[in-house]
Amino acid sequence: MSTTPNWQERYNAKLIITFRVRVPDEHGRLAHLLKALAEAGASLGSIDLVDADSTHKVRDLQLFLTDEDRLDAAVEAVNRLDGYELVRIRDDVLEIHRHGTITTRALAPLETIMDLRMVYTPGVASVCQLIAERPEQAWKYTAKGNKIAIVTNGTAVLGLGDIGPLAGLPVMEGKAAILDRFVGVSAEPVLIDSHDPAEIIEIVAKIASQYGAIQLEDIAAPACFEIEETLDERLDVPVFHDDQHGTATDCRVVIAGAGAAGTAIARFLARMGVDDVIVCDSRGAVHAKREAGMNEWKRRLADETNRDNLDGPLEKVMKGRTVFIGVSRPNTVSREMIASMDEPIVFALANPVSEIPVTDALSAGAVVAVDGRGMNNALAYPGIFRGTLDARARSITYEMKLAAAEALAASAEAGLMPDMFDMAMHRRVADAVKRAAGSS
Amino acid sequence: MSTTPNWQERYNAKLIITFRVRVPDEHGRLAHLLKALAEAGASLGSIDLVDADSTHKVRDLQLFLTDEDRLDAAVEAVNRLDGYELVRIRDDVLEIHRHGTITTRALAPLETIMDLRMVYTPGVASVCQLIAERPEQAWKYTAKGNKIAIVTNGTAVLGLGDIGPLAGLPVMEGKAAILDRFVGVSAEPVLIDSHDPAEIIEIVAKIASQYGAIQLEDIAAPACFEIEETLDERLDVPVFHDDQHGTATDCRVVIAGAGAAGTAIARFLARMGVDDVIVCDSRGAVHAKREAGMNEWKRRLADETNRDNLDGPLEKVMKGRTVFIGVSRPNTVSREMIASMDEPIVFALANPVSEIPVTDALSAGAVVAVDGRGMNNALAYPGIFRGTLDARARSITYEMKLAAAEALAASAEAGLMPDMFDMAMHRRVADAVKRAAGSS
Repeated sequence: MSTTPNWQERYNAKLIITFRVRVPDEHGRLAHLLKALAEAGASLGSIDLVDADSTHKVRDLQLFLTDEDRLDAAVEAVNRLDGYELVRIRDDVLEIHRHGTITTRALAPLETIMDLRMVYTPGVASVCQLIAERPEQAWKYTAKGNKIAIVTNGTAVLGLGDIGPLAGLPVMEGKAAILDRFVGVSAEPVLIDSHDPAEIIEIVAKIASQYGAIQLEDIAAPACFEIEETLDERLDVPVFHDDQHGTATDCRVVIAGAGAAGTAIARFLARMGVDDVIVCDSRGAVHAKREAGMNEWKRRLADETNRDNLDGPLEKVMKGRTVFIGVSRPNTVSREMIASMDEPIVFALANPVSEIPVTDALSAGAVVAVDGRGMNNALAYPGIFRGTLDARARSITYEMKLAAAEALAASAEAGLMPDMFDMAMHRRVADAVKRAAGSS
Repeated sequence: MSTTPNWQERYNAKLIITFRVRVPDEHGRLAHLLKALAEAGASLGSIDLVDADSTHKVRDLQLFLTDEDRLDAAVEAVNRLDGYELVRIRDDVLEIHRHGTITTRALAPLETIMDLRMVYTPGVASVCQLIAERPEQAWKYTAKGNKIAIVTNGTAVLGLGDIGPLAGLPVMEGKAAILDRFVGVSAEPVLIDSHDPAEIIEIVAKIASQYGAIQLEDIAAPACFEIEETLDERLDVPVFHDDQHGTATDCRVVIAGAGAAGTAIARFLARMGVDDVIVCDSRGAVHAKREAGMNEWKRRLADETNRDNLDGPLEKVMKGRTVFIGVSRPNTVSREMIASMDEPIVFALANPVSEIPVTDALSAGAVVAVDGRGMNNALAYPGIFRGTLDARARSITYEMKLAAAEALAASAEAGLMPDMFDMAMHRRVADAVKRAAGSS
C-alpha cells in the first residue's frame, strides 16, 4: 500500500511526519492535496488508506521534510484547502522508537510448573553448580555464547558529539535491533556515565563475564583507542570499536576526520598495503612535524601515514587524490574541492548529513559517490559479530575484518552496494569471519 | 501426552533426566519397563511417544532422581532388560538452559530501508537530540520505561553460597524470563565481579541511567543492606533487594536465618505490627546482649526484634512458637523441633532443599506447611516490578510491598497458594502496587 518515495528528494529529510487527512471522496481531490503538499516543500512517502465513509476517505500521508519551517508550511497548505481536515500529525521516527526498539524475551518455555522448576528454582541450581565448577560451560548453558554488550559513554554519538550515554541509547537499541533481525545475535546496551578511560575500562572489565564479545560504540577519540587496546588485552573475549571498522585499491587516499573512524580506516588501509594515505583533522593534514593539536594517537598516525609529510588544510591536500573518505562533519567539502581531485571515488560518510551531497559530488566529477545512507556499517557488523561468536574468538583480528570486507565486496553486484536485506549476504560475512578466526 | 508426575515423589529430585528407550511393541512391555525403573528408585514424569516401527516404539521417559547413584541404577535397570535399548540420556534441566533462557529481540519493524533509516541512522539522531535536551523523554522513547536491571555479584546464589556472578547467571536469566512471560517486563542481567560494596555501588550508579528500576539479587548480607540503602538514596529509580522481600499475623514468630531474607522479613513483620519475632542465625537467637558474630545489621535487628532477649539455639527458641519461617539451610529442622511448637504454621523456604520436608512437618503436627516450591517469590516480584514501572515510582515503599502481599493473599483461594499461571493474579498485584505508589 506504499508508493516508492523519491530517494533523492528525501535525501536530507530531517523530519519524517505522517499527516492523517480526511479527503473529500471526489474525483481529483487526492491529487489536489498532493500537489499542495509538494508545493509547500514536502516530499511524499507512503500513502495509506485508513478509513472511508460515504463522503470522505481518511488517508495517512508520509512526508519527508527538511526542517520545521517546511512542516509549518505543509500544515498550512492542508488547512488552506476547502473540505479537507488534518486529523492528526505523527512523528514517525519518534513513533517507531516509542517504548524502545528492543526488549528481553524468554527463550525457554514457561507453560507448566515443571518448566518453572527447571528454568528457575529449584532446578536452575544444578546449572549454577556446573558453571561454578566449569566456567566455560557458561558458553553453552547461558546466553553468553550468543550475546554481546554494546558499550557507550555517549561522547561521540553519530555526528551529535558528547550528548551523554542516555541520549545515545536509541542508537544502541537500534544497533541491537539490527543484530537480532539480521543475524540473531542478542545484544544488551551498557551505558557508562563516565569520561575517564581508566574508569570505563575498570567498569567494563568488572561486568564483562556474561558477554561473548564487547562492542565499544560512539566513544570519542582518543579515549576509545586506550579503552579498546587495554580491554582487548585484559579480557578473553573480543573487544571491538565499531566506529573504527565495519565501514573500508593502487590509490592516493585522503581521509577527512582523525577521530576513531578516520584513524582505524587509515590503519586498515595501511595493513592492506595502501601506502599513500593522508589524514586531516580540523587543523589540516596530520604529519610527523606538526605540533599543534597532536596527541599520542595522532603521533602514531603521523608515523604510519603521510609519507611525504604534506601539510595544509583539507582543501589543499585533496588536490590530485583519487579517493576521498569523509568521516568528519556535515557540509565541509565543496564541489570545487571534489573537482580538484583525480577521477575521484568519494565516500562522504559523515552522520547524519554527509560532507557533501552525493549529487553535488557526482556533478563535480566524482566517478562514484556514496554516503552513510548507501554505505553503512550496518552492512558489516551483524555478520562480524555472528561469525565472531560462532568461532568463539578471543579477538577480532585484521584477518577477520579483511574477510568481512572481501565477503561484502563479493556480495555487491557490479557497482552497487550490498543489500542489507539479503540475509545470505550476512551469512556469507559471518562464515568468512568464522573461517578467518579459525585460521588465524 | 504427559502423565501427571507424582509431586510428593519428585519433591527432592535433584536430577530430571529423560531416557529415550526402544521398547518392543508387544503387550505389557512398557509396563515392564516402568516397573523396573520404579524399582531402581526413579520417579516417573512425562512419557512421550517419539517414533515407531514394525517391531518397536521409541519413547521418551522423564525420570526424577534424587542423586547420581539412582541414575546409575536406572541405567542398569534398562540395560538388564532383554530386547530394550537405551538410545539416549538427556539432562532436561541443562537442555532447557542450553543457549540461555533469554535473548534480546527487536521490537521495531526492520523490513524496509525506510524502517532502518528510522530505527537506526540517520533518523535515530532526532530521538537522541530530543533525549539530550529532555532526558525524561527516555522513559517514552527508549526501553527504559519497561526495563529493569537484575544486579548480582553472585555471593549468595540460592543456597549455593558465593559461586561468583557468572555461575549465578542462570538464575538471573530465569528471573528475567519469568518477568517477560508473566508481566512483559524487560530485564537485563548485570553481573558485577566484586565483593566490595562501595565498588558495586559506584558501578551500579554509573550504569543505571537506562533502567526504570534496579533489582539486587543474590547478594550476600550484610553487603546487600548497604548497597540497597545507598543506591536507593542516590538513584532516582527504585532499588529493590528481592531476597529481602517478595516472599511475608497476633502470632509468635521464629525466623531461622539472619541473612538478607530473614532480616527483611523480620523488619517487614515489625512494620506490620507483629511484635513478637525472634531471629536465629547459626549461633542461635540474635539478641541485644549477644556479642559473638554480630555486625551493624544484626545489632539493628537485635534492637527491633526479640523483645525478651531470649538466647540459645534454634531448637530452644522454637518451643511454643506459632510460626516458623525458615530462610536458612537445608535439613536443619527436625520433626521434634516442629512438634515442640504450638499449632505451628511452617514456612520452610530454604533453597533448593527446605529446612524440613513438608510431609515431615505435617506429620509432626504442623497445621500448614509450605516450602519454596509451593511459595516462591516468583509469585510476587513480577507484579511488583510491573506496578512499579507503570507508576514510574522512585522507590518501592513499604506500602507498595504491603499492597502486593495483600493482593497475593486475596488471590489465594481458601488455604491454597496463589497460582503462578493465573495472569490476572499478576495483574492484580501490579495494579495494587501501582495504586499504592500513587498514594504514597
